[in-house]
Amino acid sequence: MPVVGTRAAFLVIGNEILTGKVVEENVPFLARELFGLGITLSRIVVCADDEAVIAADVRALGQAHDILFTSGGVGPTHDDVTIPAIARAFDRPLVRDPVLEARIREHFGARTTDGHLRMAEMPQGGELVASEKMSWPVLRVENVWVLPGVPQIFRLKFDLVRDRLARGAPFLTRAIFTRCDEGEIAALLAEVESRVPGVAIGSYPRLSDPEYTVKITVDGRDARAVDTALDALIEALPADRIVRVER
Amino acid sequence: MPVVGTRAAFLVIGNEILTGKVVEENVPFLARELFGLGITLSRIVVCADDEAVIAADVRALGQAHDILFTSGGVGPTHDDVTIPAIARAFDRPLVRDPVLEARIREHFGARTTDGHLRMAEMPQGGELVASEKMSWPVLRVENVWVLPGVPQIFRLKFDLVRDRLARGAPFLTRAIFTRCDEGEIAALLAEVESRVPGVAIGSYPRLSDPEYTVKITVDGRDARAVDTALDALIEALPADRIVRVER
Repeated sequence: MPVVGTRAAFLVIGNEILTGKVVEENVPFLARELFGLGITLSRIVVCADDEAVIAADVRALGQAHDILFTSGGVGPTHDDVTIPAIARAFDRPLVRDPVLEARIREHFGARTTDGHLRMAEMPQGGELVASEKMSWPVLRVENVWVLPGVPQIFRLKFDLVRDRLARGAPFLTRAIFTRCDEGEIAALLAEVESRVPGVAIGSYPRLSDPEYTVKITVDGRDARAVDTALDALIEALPADRIVRVER
Repeated sequence: MPVVGTRAAFLVIGNEILTGKVVEENVPFLARELFGLGITLSRIVVCADDEAVIAADVRALGQAHDILFTSGGVGPTHDDVTIPAIARAFDRPLVRDPVLEARIREHFGARTTDGHLRMAEMPQGGELVASEKMSWPVLRVENVWVLPGVPQIFRLKFDLVRDRLARGAPFLTRAIFTRCDEGEIAALLAEVESRVPGVAIGSYPRLSDPEYTVKITVDGRDARAVDTALDALIEALPADRIVRVER
């Protein structure tokens, strides 16, 4: 499928993912959300809690995509280095936002630490996107949206981001569940994909599922093209091997 | 923690992950396995089923790391382009392995298609690593191990790869579950990490868990250093905020 419209990347920051201590949960959520918004998620990178590495990734991914989302590394501890890394990526100094600082001091009072106050820092020129519902704003620096790693908060904050994203025509997806062998249908899938412009056909084998052996997916932005490809596949596949169709 | 020993990267290939159709399951498995083997997993990239993109990623990640694992894109259909992409990354022609070809023809007989036969192709000079238990070998090209995307098969094949990996001293990990606030302990964590060479201290806040609010982890290769850091943290943290310690 030719990539058209907005292209996004996602930088997941955290040693806990690379060491297998934590199972990453934001990728499936963000991928589905962007797909529904018609934004192409082109690349995901998981990197360590290392300021120089994060800065290089933010620069490279941000330049190569229309939007970059980051997750993780925004707390108060020594391994939270995403904000200084983003400042470095954009060659900007870190500044302390007075409104956030006041909010932190009000909340923690005499117990306020330098760690807490680090959470009031941002790269100069960043925008704090807030809403009445959200107790803490989301930081945007140019085309980079900075989100937290904790999945519950990631989702809450993405609600705020969603309204600000330029949408394309949403992607549509259809599926045919079959009892085919992938090798036998390979030529058919390639032929239909190349004949119908603007659709992407995927083929996903499934092991030890009593219902089906291969799921065929047809994705695209144009409903007519997607249905043309879907109908061509249904027509050409052996009828007794089609288990069900999801439109 | 200074990175010492073998460094690995993992390239996950598949539109189905980027569109949110499939939840990736091989990352947590591989991350835990490598951690146990003392191999540092430094970077994970998820890319699309695009031969040029995969080739560029294989070249870049393979050159920057001691080992690269790939998953996905090794089936018989048009969206399976990992093998030609790896050939392109190493500037080598694709060749058809006669043993694999014979095995495919024996299995599929008259139903054998060009799609099936694509699964007998490999970059010239690649090694097929087999065992008596495994019905199908694993392809290695220089420092790149080519694994399938289907999680059950990924795990089976990794059993074969594991025996061939150069091991370092395994990583050890300990954890302290606390009812602390991250901001209040940030300075302590940074101080202990900088004082004890060879350990990495992580801090992971947890929302709405009745048991604890922050999990502190101490990782390293040297048991004495890890325990020194752990004991220093236990000593310095308020005793009534420590829920439990995992050694």
